[in-house]
Amino acid sequence: MVLKNRFSLNQMTVANLTLPQAIESCVRHGVASIGLWRHRIEEVGLSAAVKFIKDSGLHVSSVCRGGMFPDPSASGRDARIDDNFRAIDQAAALEADSLVLVVGAGPSIPLPDARQMVVEGLARIAPYAQAAGVRLALEPLHPMYAGDRSVLNTIDQALALAIPFDPMTVGIILDTFHIWWDPALDAAIARCTGRVAGFHVCDWLVPLPDVLMGRGLMGEGVIEIARIRQMVDDAGYEGPIEVEIFNQSLWDTPSDEVMRKVIDSFIAHV
Amino acid sequence: MVLKNRFSLNQMTVANLTLPQAIESCVRHGVASIGLWRHRIEEVGLSAAVKFIKDSGLHVSSVCRGGMFPDPSASGRDARIDDNFRAIDQAAALEADSLVLVVGAGPSIPLPDARQMVVEGLARIAPYAQAAGVRLALEPLHPMYAGDRSVLNTIDQALALAIPFDPMTVGIILDTFHIWWDPALDAAIARCTGRVAGFHVCDWLVPLPDVLMGRGLMGEGVIEIARIRQMVDDAGYEGPIEVEIFNQSLWDTPSDEVMRKVIDSFIAHV
Repeated sequence: MVLKNRFSLNQMTVANLTLPQAIESCVRHGVASIGLWRHRIEEVGLSAAVKFIKDSGLHVSSVCRGGMFPDPSASGRDARIDDNFRAIDQAAALEADSLVLVVGAGPSIPLPDARQMVVEGLARIAPYAQAAGVRLALEPLHPMYAGDRSVLNTIDQALALAIPFDPMTVGIILDTFHIWWDPALDAAIARCTGRVAGFHVCDWLVPLPDVLMGRGLMGEGVIEIARIRQMVDDAGYEGPIEVEIFNQSLWDTPSDEVMRKVIDSFIAHV
Repeated sequence: MVLKNRFSLNQMTVANLTLPQAIESCVRHGVASIGLWRHRIEEVGLSAAVKFIKDSGLHVSSVCRGGMFPDPSASGRDARIDDNFRAIDQAAALEADSLVLVVGAGPSIPLPDARQMVVEGLARIAPYAQAAGVRLALEPLHPMYAGDRSVLNTIDQALALAIPFDPMTVGIILDTFHIWWDPALDAAIARCTGRVAGFHVCDWLVPLPDVLMGRGLMGEGVIEIARIRQMVDDAGYEGPIEVEIFNQSLWDTPSDEVMRKVIDSFIAHV
């Protein structure tokens, strides 16, 4: 049982709403925090986005997303770094708790090489983030995304990447969907103490309807979300908990109904 | 580059063929080993299956599969143990290198409890296997199957389960599809030295077409199969390498064409 005041709406849960629509929906449903996506920020422009947020009084729990470091060419990797600088600027202007990093993958790049490109990319952007006062948040993604979205796939791997940096410069996002299967989950979360930059929740449906768009509302699947939330609490994280659900049928549902469902399932199952 | 004489056809790659048809196809294509599935053994009966194999001169690299330990009720778990005893008898009669264990999962059972049921189930069947001269082979399955097929999801977790037992009683199956993403892969395979009971190959397609039926022919996806094969060799495994591909479009292809394709891609990419 967790209080509604820790609830944050990750904008991807209501993917069809524009930034002002998502903000308006949060305010109307008594939600205090929001996780923003850059394509929706860029649609209205950064200054307008900052104004919408300020006027609403909402807290920005994260900006999604930077990262995507691996690229076959040096110039391609440079372009990714420039894009991360822009993302850091956006997170700074919006006073977000963190910039989520989905580190990327290159289907044509051998896995060990792609992982080395992530090490190098992180080292290139960390000083810029520190100067901007933005916390970078490495998000390990489920191993089923290692071929096309993220070569960062376990909490321990994220910790190894983060440890060279100050915890307020490079933290870790824990997402139940991505980490729940880990045989060493309890110990790995405990090792994150002081590094947890955010916590995302959704559920794992059985059978899994789709690799990307098949995530479930909390309580619909097999993840022991409340147990994991307690472990994350014990690791010292007291911030907002984002509900981030990629699910086509949810996206096809009217957003007021989605808001009621996610808030209810948050209160019942997180 | 690996020699064709290490090639073994896992029967699931030609899922539409009966046991005698699969055996006949192996003989005709100059294949020396086969991995058998129990539903195809039971279709003809164990004695007939043994006679088909003896007459063909084929070596049986594995019998698939035992395991499936978690069940909400004690009587349900007992029934699973009895089924494992029958599987061990089949593997013994067929003189298989090992009985593959897919340990199972219970969507209604909390993950830590299901994992404990696996520990207990393995302890119950190991003495029976040892007496029968059958090597049990724990197969870690990809974490995306943790909700419905297997709560054993990493090599290190398999090692922890296996270590209390003699390596010839409880070994480990390494399958490229299930293990390739592991950030600690090289070290984990090295730790398997003396425990590798089998090696399975297929590829990971990007994007993944289907959670279960979307596996690719070697060379079609992103896995560095030859690099992993070398690591498995270095861990002391010199036995047959099974090609096991769950792929609906391959199953819809005439089996002679499938045999040519898998042998060619084995020689080129393993």
